[in-house]
Amino acid sequence: MSQQPAQFTPDTTTAIVGVGLIGGSIAAALKSRGHRGRIVGIGRNANRLESAVDAGLIDEFATDSAQVQADLYVFCTPVDRIPKDVFHASETANANAVFTDAGSVKELICNTLDADALGRFVGSHPLAGSEKRGFEYAEPDLFVDRVCIVTPTENSADSSVDFIEQFWRSIGMRTLRMSPAEHDAALAQTSHLPHLMASVLAGCLPMDWANLTSTGFADTTRIAAGDAELWTAILLQNQGPVLAACDRFEETWRKFRQAIETSDATELTRQLAQAKNIRDSINTD
Amino acid sequence: MSQQPAQFTPDTTTAIVGVGLIGGSIAAALKSRGHRGRIVGIGRNANRLESAVDAGLIDEFATDSAQVQADLYVFCTPVDRIPKDVFHASETANANAVFTDAGSVKELICNTLDADALGRFVGSHPLAGSEKRGFEYAEPDLFVDRVCIVTPTENSADSSVDFIEQFWRSIGMRTLRMSPAEHDAALAQTSHLPHLMASVLAGCLPMDWANLTSTGFADTTRIAAGDAELWTAILLQNQGPVLAACDRFEETWRKFRQAIETSDATELTRQLAQAKNIRDSINTD
Repeated sequence: MSQQPAQFTPDTTTAIVGVGLIGGSIAAALKSRGHRGRIVGIGRNANRLESAVDAGLIDEFATDSAQVQADLYVFCTPVDRIPKDVFHASETANANAVFTDAGSVKELICNTLDADALGRFVGSHPLAGSEKRGFEYAEPDLFVDRVCIVTPTENSADSSVDFIEQFWRSIGMRTLRMSPAEHDAALAQTSHLPHLMASVLAGCLPMDWANLTSTGFADTTRIAAGDAELWTAILLQNQGPVLAACDRFEETWRKFRQAIETSDATELTRQLAQAKNIRDSINTD
Repeated sequence: MSQQPAQFTPDTTTAIVGVGLIGGSIAAALKSRGHRGRIVGIGRNANRLESAVDAGLIDEFATDSAQVQADLYVFCTPVDRIPKDVFHASETANANAVFTDAGSVKELICNTLDADALGRFVGSHPLAGSEKRGFEYAEPDLFVDRVCIVTPTENSADSSVDFIEQFWRSIGMRTLRMSPAEHDAALAQTSHLPHLMASVLAGCLPMDWANLTSTGFADTTRIAAGDAELWTAILLQNQGPVLAACDRFEETWRKFRQAIETSDATELTRQLAQAKNIRDSINTD
């Protein structure tokens, strides 16, 4: 068993693996809150990491996690790379280091890491982001007042879970514990399905009409500008729950479409009003 | 035949029928650009119109267009009320008055009014708006640099079309002429389909997961907060083109879904990248 990790404090040496929009924003959030511990960026591109040092986001960098000793490792790499990145880091990390991630899918990652990481890995998903890429878009307040879902398993050490929750709270998030499977079912509906919708809506637009779009189209398709490979990995890693969310969508879609086909104004208004009620009730801060 | 209308000038007496978000924003836009002509609000609710006078948006008001003599009438009422509102006003208006509207569907309105309005009605659709309702949300710059589609028919007097285009340009819009049918086909795809998507996406959300939405869900469903009855009228008035847009959506949707079902990462990435390219190419100012 690993040693008990210390609490997360402003002195915790923090390694951020993958210094893009999310990793960069975590670094910016820590810096802006007076974090004193070293912040080490880890990635594959030394030039990019050097620029992140120059930008004041990270204190130093390495292109291999084996060169780094940190108390906390936060993996912000694409979901299909997180398990092997964590394994690799865990081989050389201190016995009391704790690992978490920011991936949008949790079950495959947590199951893969569960046995091997000996309770030191606790999956996370901060519900904040942007369709943009790169630490140049980092925002120190990206996470403030947003939810971070933390997904411990039965092998997770309580102390590691506490540590990870302290970390996310330190940058302003509200934490919420769920199982990896519960997370994936919910996020398929609240995040992965909207991405799919936005992409289908953009993808089926005849280009002749591209100059006739307005704010409605712009809002509705904004997330379709996200990276295609990142989203391929997310949608395929969460295949089952995503298809279940698609089924829910299609069922409701058929009701709307039928009301239009049959010119059923009463039913169409009922469906639109129900959707409006749901939309009005969600938190959109 | 009607007399030739004058040009639209800063002295044109302008009646705005329906002083909500759009009508109120038109009034605010005219005021902020130094319009000197009287701005008369026409509506059913005298208390609301009195508040709009108090807010400085309109100079006076009437609850019946028969009480008003204006050079220009702009109808910002729901699409299913515009034809009869125009007919009613045309019965008592000056012979050289010009009429336009801001409705989201054009063919039914323009066809209905074409014969009777003797070239004095020219349909318009300013591509700007909000899911909000009420003149309290009026924005003087709502229309700046946005497109206004103007849909003359063969019965439209050239002088009326020019007048209407001058009017929209005076509040900062770029005007674009299309036939009513072309407008409806395009807007079914660029505006009515996105509204439907947003509503279906909001409508199929299990409420247990409402607290697990993030900015992606919020953006994608924003327009679902629009008024249910207004949108029922729009979707049903444009039934044919909306169903054609639905067909296009479903065809693309099936390709995405199949790529997920068959775990075809290459095809899914191709589809997502194509959607991203389209999204990246549209004007989102």
